[in-house]
Amino acid sequence: MKKAILLVIDGLGDLPTPKTPLQAAKKPNLDKLAKDGITGMLAPVGRFIVPGSDTSHLQMLGYDPEIYYCGRGPLEALGVGVALEEGDVAFRANLATVKNGKVIDRRAGRIDTATAATLAKYVPKEIDGVQIIFKTSVEHRGALVLRGPGLSCCVSDTDPHSPGAIHECQPLDDSPEPKKTSDIVNKFTKLAMEALSKAPENSKRDKPANAILVRGAGSYRKPPSFHERFGLYAACIAGGALYRGVATFMGMDLVMVPGATGDRNTDIAAKAKAAVKALGEYDFVFMHVKGCDSAGHDGDFAAKKRMIERIDREAIPLLAESGACLVITGDHSTPVSLKAHSGHEVPIIVHGGERKDDVRKFDELSCAKGGLGHVKGRHIMPLILNITGRAEKYGT
Amino acid sequence: MKKAILLVIDGLGDLPTPKTPLQAAKKPNLDKLAKDGITGMLAPVGRFIVPGSDTSHLQMLGYDPEIYYCGRGPLEALGVGVALEEGDVAFRANLATVKNGKVIDRRAGRIDTATAATLAKYVPKEIDGVQIIFKTSVEHRGALVLRGPGLSCCVSDTDPHSPGAIHECQPLDDSPEPKKTSDIVNKFTKLAMEALSKAPENSKRDKPANAILVRGAGSYRKPPSFHERFGLYAACIAGGALYRGVATFMGMDLVMVPGATGDRNTDIAAKAKAAVKALGEYDFVFMHVKGCDSAGHDGDFAAKKRMIERIDREAIPLLAESGACLVITGDHSTPVSLKAHSGHEVPIIVHGGERKDDVRKFDELSCAKGGLGHVKGRHIMPLILNITGRAEKYGT
Repeated sequence: MKKAILLVIDGLGDLPTPKTPLQAAKKPNLDKLAKDGITGMLAPVGRFIVPGSDTSHLQMLGYDPEIYYCGRGPLEALGVGVALEEGDVAFRANLATVKNGKVIDRRAGRIDTATAATLAKYVPKEIDGVQIIFKTSVEHRGALVLRGPGLSCCVSDTDPHSPGAIHECQPLDDSPEPKKTSDIVNKFTKLAMEALSKAPENSKRDKPANAILVRGAGSYRKPPSFHERFGLYAACIAGGALYRGVATFMGMDLVMVPGATGDRNTDIAAKAKAAVKALGEYDFVFMHVKGCDSAGHDGDFAAKKRMIERIDREAIPLLAESGACLVITGDHSTPVSLKAHSGHEVPIIVHGGERKDDVRKFDELSCAKGGLGHVKGRHIMPLILNITGRAEKYGT
Repeated sequence: MKKAILLVIDGLGDLPTPKTPLQAAKKPNLDKLAKDGITGMLAPVGRFIVPGSDTSHLQMLGYDPEIYYCGRGPLEALGVGVALEEGDVAFRANLATVKNGKVIDRRAGRIDTATAATLAKYVPKEIDGVQIIFKTSVEHRGALVLRGPGLSCCVSDTDPHSPGAIHECQPLDDSPEPKKTSDIVNKFTKLAMEALSKAPENSKRDKPANAILVRGAGSYRKPPSFHERFGLYAACIAGGALYRGVATFMGMDLVMVPGATGDRNTDIAAKAKAAVKALGEYDFVFMHVKGCDSAGHDGDFAAKKRMIERIDREAIPLLAESGACLVITGDHSTPVSLKAHSGHEVPIIVHGGERKDDVRKFDELSCAKGGLGHVKGRHIMPLILNITGRAEKYGT
């Protein structure tokens, strides 16, 4: 049976200024796929809805976020390799720099990954009988997990999201579990700050990583696996913890690729090679490339264009030669002019198993005339099952 | 008020190899309707969902299969003319050839319709107080109905669907009704095989019709009628039992047309003439032509193309002259390259009452640029009510 690769180019879509990065980029290989395949526009979550990366990926991979989304925390924790247990409360965490009671850098000067990892050992491992797991991923990023009875994810963020004091974690309702959980988070914040302030790794840093900010609390519940739901053995190739977490959440295997950093310096060719190789063992490969989104958030048109050109040059020929059905799209638009996610659709190419149309370029204007029309994130898995000949007939 | 004809060309959609049968066919009359009307692409059940013929027709005719679908059995039984009663459990049935305990032909050498009909009299009429109705339709096809208290449709098929022994009918849950029903089916299978083996009609057959295979069990529940739901007096013109059954299920009248065989040799012109004539008495005519689907299942490109050309030549001019609004589409794609139903959309033409677009050809590529865009099966009845001026305003 046919196999498929879903390539998600994070934050791919954009607005014209006067061209979009996709329109400006030299991308002969993506254009060839558009010419030989069928195109359309994708609303990853719903028309004009601004997707988060987490909800968008859940939806595209067949897990309706209205049912399965349990906050960013559990996905981040799974992504950094914490083996979550049912009922764990997890948060996305940032190492940050606090001075005179104020957060002066939410990323602790984008601390390097190796130093960040060594700091975890100073952080408390248990508070009031609740087990604490803190694990870093890339640079300042990490996850905090609370494990024990009587916890709840109905608590607020400590991350102030902008300059200011660390927020107190607040229970979001009157039941005892949120109160207990917020108390533990506040104790953790205080104890971690005391311990990190004394850490020798921080002594010479201009911006010491002396605090941990948390956000996106969620309670982990194990969903039915991707294989149970779709009958596909699936692998994920991604650098970013969130995307690895989404895949792990669904029970996909992670293929770890040295050089896959989840940022603009990632080794795209190595990821593409690994994706093609994984087709030997798996029915479906979900490959994620982050850089265009980061460039969009930075408002850096040239960097977003360059990233598209790198993907075109370094990944697309390998994927195209694999013989697998290819679905290439983004999880949302991150327009350079907005420096933020937006609810504008993202172009999509389907190559292999579908019809053709007469669109010859892969960009926001051309694909709006494509033969797929306007599709939604929830259509992606039915589409993949259909083009690989794996869909079950509804009725007889 | 305006009247409408819905022409469903079964299995119409296809994939390019490099052209689709619709693209390759000479069909000046369909192309003229496309040119003079408006076109689009139809997902009969949902985007990329692979429809069965039963669920697709229910959905297109305004009966959401999630609510109204009760399995293929009752629709087949209604289609062969069994007046079902609430609670009847019905199956699609095949006359088959069994040799040395193995099904060697699931269609008993495609036994002729007249001989098949004579065999019904040998089959048991009652088992354990449950009434048994077996009725054949075209060739090896038929329906089996069990009528009595305490029956259930939660039982498995006896049809092995591929070479092998007849399957035992199994209860699908632990309650007493499925057990009772499966016991009766298994007794029926045994008694029918004994009786048919002795039938004189079978004595000289190379492939005796000596067994009955059943599948698609369903319990009949009477739904609100098509007229109650849409205010249209409706007639159906179809050769195949399933399509007649769908129409009967909805309380449509059947217009029987001599020569409407439900296969590639059907008298298309006679059906079209009957459809136009029925407009005198009815508001809405559902006309079904099967042949393209059979050709798709057989992987026969030339036959599918020829069937399209015959429909174009023999039916379309008559329908176009009728003055009725025309909706012409398929119930699903049956790509010749796949020999099976697929989840690819089907082109659709609406002629009369709708706007025009600048599409000039009726095929999968042209209609993807049509003014209707991408519509779904559940839109067909609102569309028909709208273009015939029969839709009720929602609000004031």
